[in-house]
Amino acid sequence: MSTDYIAVSETSGAELDELLASAEEAAPPWDQLGPTQRATALRNLASALDNAAESLVSLAQQETNLAEGRCRSELGRTTFQLRLFADVIDEGTYLEATIDSVDENWPSGNRPDLRRMLVPMGPVLVFAASNFPFAFSVAGGDTASALASGCPVIVKAHPGHPQLSAATAQVVAQALRDSGAPDGTFSMIYGDESARTALTDSRVTAAAFTGSLRAGRALFDLAVSRTQPIPFYAEMGSLNPVFVTERAADSRGDEVFAGFVDSYTLGVGQFCTKPGLLFAPAQSNAENVIAEAVKDRSGAPLLNERVERGYSETLEALSNHPALRTVVQGKNGSQGPSPTLLTTSVQELVKHADELLVECFGPTSLLVTYYDERELLTAAQSMEGQLTATVQGEENDPIAEELMAELRETAGRIIWNGWPTGVAVSWAMQHGGPYPATTSPAFTSVGTTAIRRFLRPVCYQSVPQALLPLALQDKNPLGIPRRVNGSLAWQ
Amino acid sequence: MSTDYIAVSETSGAELDELLASAEEAAPPWDQLGPTQRATALRNLASALDNAAESLVSLAQQETNLAEGRCRSELGRTTFQLRLFADVIDEGTYLEATIDSVDENWPSGNRPDLRRMLVPMGPVLVFAASNFPFAFSVAGGDTASALASGCPVIVKAHPGHPQLSAATAQVVAQALRDSGAPDGTFSMIYGDESARTALTDSRVTAAAFTGSLRAGRALFDLAVSRTQPIPFYAEMGSLNPVFVTERAADSRGDEVFAGFVDSYTLGVGQFCTKPGLLFAPAQSNAENVIAEAVKDRSGAPLLNERVERGYSETLEALSNHPALRTVVQGKNGSQGPSPTLLTTSVQELVKHADELLVECFGPTSLLVTYYDERELLTAAQSMEGQLTATVQGEENDPIAEELMAELRETAGRIIWNGWPTGVAVSWAMQHGGPYPATTSPAFTSVGTTAIRRFLRPVCYQSVPQALLPLALQDKNPLGIPRRVNGSLAWQ
Repeated sequence: MSTDYIAVSETSGAELDELLASAEEAAPPWDQLGPTQRATALRNLASALDNAAESLVSLAQQETNLAEGRCRSELGRTTFQLRLFADVIDEGTYLEATIDSVDENWPSGNRPDLRRMLVPMGPVLVFAASNFPFAFSVAGGDTASALASGCPVIVKAHPGHPQLSAATAQVVAQALRDSGAPDGTFSMIYGDESARTALTDSRVTAAAFTGSLRAGRALFDLAVSRTQPIPFYAEMGSLNPVFVTERAADSRGDEVFAGFVDSYTLGVGQFCTKPGLLFAPAQSNAENVIAEAVKDRSGAPLLNERVERGYSETLEALSNHPALRTVVQGKNGSQGPSPTLLTTSVQELVKHADELLVECFGPTSLLVTYYDERELLTAAQSMEGQLTATVQGEENDPIAEELMAELRETAGRIIWNGWPTGVAVSWAMQHGGPYPATTSPAFTSVGTTAIRRFLRPVCYQSVPQALLPLALQDKNPLGIPRRVNGSLAWQ
Repeated sequence: MSTDYIAVSETSGAELDELLASAEEAAPPWDQLGPTQRATALRNLASALDNAAESLVSLAQQETNLAEGRCRSELGRTTFQLRLFADVIDEGTYLEATIDSVDENWPSGNRPDLRRMLVPMGPVLVFAASNFPFAFSVAGGDTASALASGCPVIVKAHPGHPQLSAATAQVVAQALRDSGAPDGTFSMIYGDESARTALTDSRVTAAAFTGSLRAGRALFDLAVSRTQPIPFYAEMGSLNPVFVTERAADSRGDEVFAGFVDSYTLGVGQFCTKPGLLFAPAQSNAENVIAEAVKDRSGAPLLNERVERGYSETLEALSNHPALRTVVQGKNGSQGPSPTLLTTSVQELVKHADELLVECFGPTSLLVTYYDERELLTAAQSMEGQLTATVQGEENDPIAEELMAELRETAGRIIWNGWPTGVAVSWAMQHGGPYPATTSPAFTSVGTTAIRRFLRPVCYQSVPQALLPLALQDKNPLGIPRRVNGSLAWQ
C-alpha cells in the first residue's frame, strides 16, 4: 500500500445513513460466518496490518509525535490483540454455552430443554482514542473485540491522526472483504456531529469509547437518554495512585521514587494508566529523589495541539491551587513540556479532593506526603474509581492487607511493587474500574474478556436440533467447553 | 413466627441514612465471610422461609388475591432459588478466576503475574415487584443473587403487599444474623421518595427492578444521571409474541389456540411473560377457537387496585383503537375481569405499531392474522425488545430458520412449540432482552447467571500469595474451576 494522502472530510448525513444501513445488514451474515471463519478473518487482518507496517508507522509518526519504536511496538500489540481474539473465539468459552436437559422433577417446576448462549448485539460504534493511534484506534481493542463477537463496527476516527486512520481503515476493510466478510462489517466516519448522530441512531446497539471524562460523560448521557438506551462503555482515564509504605520507603525508597518518575513520564505522561499521585512518608527523601530525577529531563512533544492545550490548562489550575506547592516546574520549550512535580499533604488533598483529584494528562504528578501510615487508608477512601492502584510495600507491612482491601473497592487493577503503565493484553487483564474510570464497572476494555461487552444472552427453549445454533447442538460440532446440567464439560 | 400486624410507614430520611451507612459498613465483612459461609447463610435463609411458610402464605393470600396453591409453589420456587445460588457460589465458576503467569516472551510485552476475579460491587438496591410477592419480592431473585455475590441488599418494599414484605424481611434479617452475616447485610425501606433518595445515594452501587416500563425507565434515568452513574437492571415486561406457522395451524391449530388461551390467562395475565400477541393465519380457525375458549371463563381478581386501574386504562385505549376489533369483551364483575380478546391484521399492527404494541398487564391478548406466512418476518422485525418470542411450527417449516434468526435479534428467550409463561430457575435460563424488555440486554434477572449483575472484575498484578484472595492463590484453596494461562483447569 502507498502512503498517498487520502482526502478526509466530515461524514455527511446521507453517507452516515448508508453506512449504518450497511452495518445493520452486515450483522447477521458476519455473525453467521461463525467463530472459525471470523477467527481467520481477524488473523488475516492482523497480517494485513503487519504487511502495511512501514507506511502505517510512518503516518503515525507524522501525525502523533510518537517515536518510531513506540509506534512499531504498538502496532505489534495491535496485531497480537487481533490474533488473541481469534484464539478466544476459536476456543469458544466466550459463548457461555449452557445446556439444561428436560427435568420433570426440577424443583422450580417442570424444566423444559433450555440452551443458552451469547450472541452479538449488532452494530457497534467505536470512538477511537488519540493516545494509542493503533491499539485504541481504528483497529484497536474495541474494534477487535466487537468484530470477534460477531458485531459490525463503525469507527469514529480520532481527529488527532486522520491520515493514519484512513490508511488503517483501508487495510481493515480490504482484509475483511478478502476474508469473506459482508460489506458493512467495518466502516469509518469522521466528525463529532456524525458521531453523535450515529450514537443516537436505532441501528447502533452499543458503543465503546476511550478518552476524557468530559467527552465520555457527554456521550454516555446521549447514549442512555435515547428512546432505546444502549450500553455505552467509556474508559475515561484515572489518577492511578501509588501508595508507598514506610517500610518500602525505608528499604528501597530511592529505587521506588526513581521508578515512579520513569512511569509517570513514560510516553510524555499520556497514558490513562499514568500514575498521577504518589503517597510517600513525609520523612522520606521522596521529594528530593523525584525532583533530582525530574529536573534535568528534557521536554517532549505531546500528541497534538488539543492535548497540549488541555495539559496546559489543567496544569495551570493545579499549580495555582493554594494547597499545592510546585517542586519542579516543567519547562515548555520548543521540544514540548518537560516533567512537573507538585506536592501536598494527605490532609490537604482530602480537604480539597474535588479540585485536586483531577487527571492531568501529560508529564505532571503530585507527591502527597503522610505522617502516619494510617493516612494511606484515608487517602484510599477519598479516591473515586480508578483504573489502577499500586502499592509499593513489604509483604509483612502491617497495613498491606487493609490497604489492598480498600483499594479493591476503588480500582480495576491492583499492582504490587510494580507500575501501572504497561497493560498486558491477556486473559487475566482488567482495564476498567468504577466511575469515573469507566461508565461500566462490570466490564474491561483490554484483555480477552473485553469481548463480553458486545454480547447478550439468548435462551432456546425446546428447540429442535436442526434449528439450534451449532454452539448448542447435542453433538457440540464446534467442540467448545459448555456447561451441561450445571457441570462444566468439554464436549 | 406470628402473623401479628407489623406497623409499616414510609422510611424517613434519617432512617434511610442509617440503613445505607449500615449497608456500606456490611459490604466488606459480608463478602469476607467467603462463598462457603455465604452459601450456608443462603441455605439457612431458605429453610427459615420454608419454616415460616404457613404465616407467609396466609399473608400473601390476604394481600395479593393469589390462590394458596400459587403462593405455596412460588414460595417453593423462591427457597429453591436461594439454594441454587448457594450451589452457584459453592461451585465457584461465577468468580471467573483467571491466572496468567509471568511470561517474558508474551507478544504484547513482558507479562507480569496477573490474576483476575470478580468481586461484589457493594450495596444493591432491589425494587420488589407486585406480581410475584415471593419470587420477585423481598427474598426473590434479585435479593438472592445480590446476597450470593457478596453484596448487601436494601429492598424497596412493594406497596402491594406491605405486611408480607415486613414479615418476609424479618425472616430474612433473622436468618442472616443467625448465620453470621454482619448487621446491614439486609434491610428494607418503604416509600417511593426514600427509594429515589437511596437510588441517588453514593453508597448504593447498583440497583435491580422488576415492574412497568414507565416506572423502570424513570428510575433508570435517575440512576444514569447521578454524578456517579450506576448499573440499573430493570426488567420491564414484554409482549411475548407467539408466531403460529401455516403448517402448525393446519396440523394442530385447535391445540395451539387452546394452549395460547391457557397461557395468556394464567395468573389472570399478570406475568411479564404473558403472551400478549398471537400471529395466526387469517384462514385458520384461530378466532373461533380462542373466542370459544375464552368467552365462558370466569373473572378473577387482579393483584391490587393499582394493577386493576392500569389494566382498565390500557384495555380501554386498545379497545377504542380503530385498528382493533374486540372479539370477546371481558366482563368486569365482582370477581374481577374475565379474559378479553382483540384482533387485527399484521398490516394494521405494523402501521400502528407505536399505539398497539404496548403491554396490557392482565387477561387480554391480541390475535393478529396474516395472509402470507412471510408477514411473520415483517411482524418480527416490527417488534421492539422482548423477554420471549414463541414459535408454534413444524420442523420442516420453510420459514422456521429465518423466523428464528429474526427473533434472536429481538428476544431473550425463544420458545419452540411451548409457551412463555413458566420461567425455570436454572443454569441456562435467560430472562431479559433488548430494550424495552430490560435496560441491560447483556444480563438476566432469572437463572444462575443473574449473579453476574452485581460483580465487577479486579486484576491483581504481581501480588504475593499471602495478600491474594483465596480464589486466586496458587493452591486453589477454594477448589474452584479457573482459567490458567488461557486453559480451563479444575485442579
